[in-house]
Amino acid sequence: MHQYFIKDQNQILEPGHRVYLNQADSHHLINVLRARHNKQLLVVHNHKKYLAKYIEKQNDLALLEVSYEVSDKQSQTELPVEVVVACGLSKNDKIDTIVQKGTECGMSFFQPLALQRDVVKWDHSKAGKKIVRLQKIADSAAEQSKRLKQVKIKDLMNLKEFVAQYQDFDFKLVAFEEKAKDGEHHLLAKIMQKLIKNQKVVMLFGSEGGLDQEEVDFLIEHGFQACSLGPRILRAETAPIYLLSVISYVTEIEKEFENEVK
Amino acid sequence: MHQYFIKDQNQILEPGHRVYLNQADSHHLINVLRARHNKQLLVVHNHKKYLAKYIEKQNDLALLEVSYEVSDKQSQTELPVEVVVACGLSKNDKIDTIVQKGTECGMSFFQPLALQRDVVKWDHSKAGKKIVRLQKIADSAAEQSKRLKQVKIKDLMNLKEFVAQYQDFDFKLVAFEEKAKDGEHHLLAKIMQKLIKNQKVVMLFGSEGGLDQEEVDFLIEHGFQACSLGPRILRAETAPIYLLSVISYVTEIEKEFENEVK
Repeated sequence: MHQYFIKDQNQILEPGHRVYLNQADSHHLINVLRARHNKQLLVVHNHKKYLAKYIEKQNDLALLEVSYEVSDKQSQTELPVEVVVACGLSKNDKIDTIVQKGTECGMSFFQPLALQRDVVKWDHSKAGKKIVRLQKIADSAAEQSKRLKQVKIKDLMNLKEFVAQYQDFDFKLVAFEEKAKDGEHHLLAKIMQKLIKNQKVVMLFGSEGGLDQEEVDFLIEHGFQACSLGPRILRAETAPIYLLSVISYVTEIEKEFENEVK
Repeated sequence: MHQYFIKDQNQILEPGHRVYLNQADSHHLINVLRARHNKQLLVVHNHKKYLAKYIEKQNDLALLEVSYEVSDKQSQTELPVEVVVACGLSKNDKIDTIVQKGTECGMSFFQPLALQRDVVKWDHSKAGKKIVRLQKIADSAAEQSKRLKQVKIKDLMNLKEFVAQYQDFDFKLVAFEEKAKDGEHHLLAKIMQKLIKNQKVVMLFGSEGGLDQEEVDFLIEHGFQACSLGPRILRAETAPIYLLSVISYVTEIEKEFENEVK
């Protein structure tokens, strides 16, 4: 069943109420899916999910009628922790992959970073367009994966701004493959054991060019820990998916299972 | 440091011995990387890793001299369990992503399957070419991620051949998103707790078209278990990466950590 976000916070979604989809979503529902009267769909509003049905087209917008709120267990699709994925700038297709699949895997925010060895640069005028483009990819992935929250693409930062912005996070990590080569993989397990509900994790990943030693030193001075993600060398766009999959497994599946078994 | 596989099993790799890279790898080292005399690189032969250096070009092939075998801990890049990823046929870019990133994440074999709702079909003549193409992607990803084993792309099968071929596996799973919608995520945790060294896991993933109910029933009759991968709906090419990341975390990081802590 297709899902759309209703972004207007002032709307009231209760059984029987009627709401419009925005222009882009209306076009998708009416012209791409060719929805008929009474077609069922999901809408998300203020992090709650509702079953709704399509009534009719009015001034090119899709008018829906809310049926009921979907129960908590079925609709709980948000990680119990906040995870920010911060990445150096890679070519379009790689950064698109991180944003799309990161959103599917539960990422909270995406933070683009200007690093020394980035393979591409975003100048001021380019950055705005890139962020709009990535935001569209994230919005579409959030709908497709049935999330309750959209993933915000943050503005481009340099490393100094980055460490200031995220100084209060509970776990601050930097992916560093030298650790993987030395067989040091324990830090990830230690963090996963400690991680509890509502905590905040930020992890920085270099672009294909990797990180400069000076950058790693600067991050460590500011409370970041160099962390490996297993023994194999992962590509820039694979590493964030590995991290998010592990956090999902530990917080959404394993810990929940242990609680029920106890 | 770049890594290449030496496929000729009859070669002897000992300190001081000299070996040639194959034609494609020689071209990469000499013409793409523009290697100079004494450049260090890694070579893998019969699942062992060696440090080597480039000597010179002879008849378009790169002649190397073996320095020494890399210690076990540094070179241990293979999952302690065998994981077969079996997928319905998707468009090229999606299946390429699964093979490339699955190889990085430790997949043992890739099994293409012809399923009812596949969005593309491989006819007999096409299948051979597709497999050659995927094998190249897997070989390159195995070198890049510093694996000790190459990932074999198996021949296309139908579902009947598939259940016969993998009947002896320890864990036989099918990804089924209806389970995710119901909030049933415990099976994955149960399996991860039981999984021990050298066991074999096979998991089947539908293409974007999903699985037919008849196919799911057939698989379950043949000992497969329907398993969700967390509460969000993952794309066909994201789900196998999630599974492999979780298996890597549990078998290579978490269990190792618990053993050392005890």
